[in-house]
Amino acid sequence: MMQGTPPTTDPKLTTRQLRRQPRLIVNTGDGKGKSTAAFGMALRGWNQGWSIGVYQFVKSPNWRTGEKAAFAALDEVHRQTGQGGPVEWHAMGAGWTWLRATQDVDQTELARQGWERIKQQLAEQTHTLYVLDEFSYVLANGWLDVDEVLQTLAERPGTQHVVMTGRRMPQQVIDAADLVTEMTKLKHPFDTGAKGQAGIEW
Amino acid sequence: MMQGTPPTTDPKLTTRQLRRQPRLIVNTGDGKGKSTAAFGMALRGWNQGWSIGVYQFVKSPNWRTGEKAAFAALDEVHRQTGQGGPVEWHAMGAGWTWLRATQDVDQTELARQGWERIKQQLAEQTHTLYVLDEFSYVLANGWLDVDEVLQTLAERPGTQHVVMTGRRMPQQVIDAADLVTEMTKLKHPFDTGAKGQAGIEW
Repeated sequence: MMQGTPPTTDPKLTTRQLRRQPRLIVNTGDGKGKSTAAFGMALRGWNQGWSIGVYQFVKSPNWRTGEKAAFAALDEVHRQTGQGGPVEWHAMGAGWTWLRATQDVDQTELARQGWERIKQQLAEQTHTLYVLDEFSYVLANGWLDVDEVLQTLAERPGTQHVVMTGRRMPQQVIDAADLVTEMTKLKHPFDTGAKGQAGIEW
Repeated sequence: MMQGTPPTTDPKLTTRQLRRQPRLIVNTGDGKGKSTAAFGMALRGWNQGWSIGVYQFVKSPNWRTGEKAAFAALDEVHRQTGQGGPVEWHAMGAGWTWLRATQDVDQTELARQGWERIKQQLAEQTHTLYVLDEFSYVLANGWLDVDEVLQTLAERPGTQHVVMTGRRMPQQVIDAADLVTEMTKLKHPFDTGAKGQAGIEW
């Protein structure tokens, strides 16, 4: 920490309160591991008994099939034994899971409907951890207003953590975030013509 | 890919074979997400039905408690329903799980015993994915010979993927790896005096 930089944490808060500060977390960069790290963090949250909401802002319905299946299994463990927490998974790829007919809805509109749902859940404090996967894609495309997103997050009640992933996260989001990690590719097998593998790439 | 760089992949292999090449994967750097991304990848492997072996080369028995509990639950799901794959978790912190008495064994010796076990499992093709968490710590401290480790990995039979995590991974390992990602901290709440939180930091 630079000398002279005042801590942003209110010194009057107790340690217990300091341990319950809501976090805005960003995993960005061109390397692998942005989403996998977000899902790894969700594993920890699950074990804390947190309610977890995943919003997958990607088109392909085949992405994250492994993570989705594993979290569905963990959600089922929670239902049956009480261990861990519930997990709710929403994917834009095949239309959000709460929408009936999405054939006539374009991508921009789908992204907006996803965000409206997140806003509603934040207001109702539905989850303790929100994973907004590939959310930078939505922001970078201008489908949502970054200022409105950050304003909503700044005003979210209680202790609700939000993890956003994706390349080229807008600088405003990085400035507003509490924890930002950049994943950089040093070497990738595709560079030398290798093919993707189940279990590794998806 | 640079022009003129020949692909290292054997052109005579079929697509199916190319999709089954064993990978050596490294997550390094000073940022967060190295281990969480490795465990996120293990989620995908679990969903593929892979046998997963986790070797936790850290001292603190409290680390990764969330991931450990979640994977124990997934292992149980596999036993009860056949979904996913089995997960075996070994932690050096409280002594490796297969050792009875470890009070008299020092850290260096524990690390070596962990590696001997991995060598044995690689020879027997016990797992499809090995997560060697904080393995760079062991290598950087000189507790294991890097050349011997890389030689063993180069000669491992079948399709066994190995993910190593940790700061300051030796350059030889990076050179030998197929996929290397560096996690860099752009911003961290501890910088401004915030405290760690259950579910976020562990």
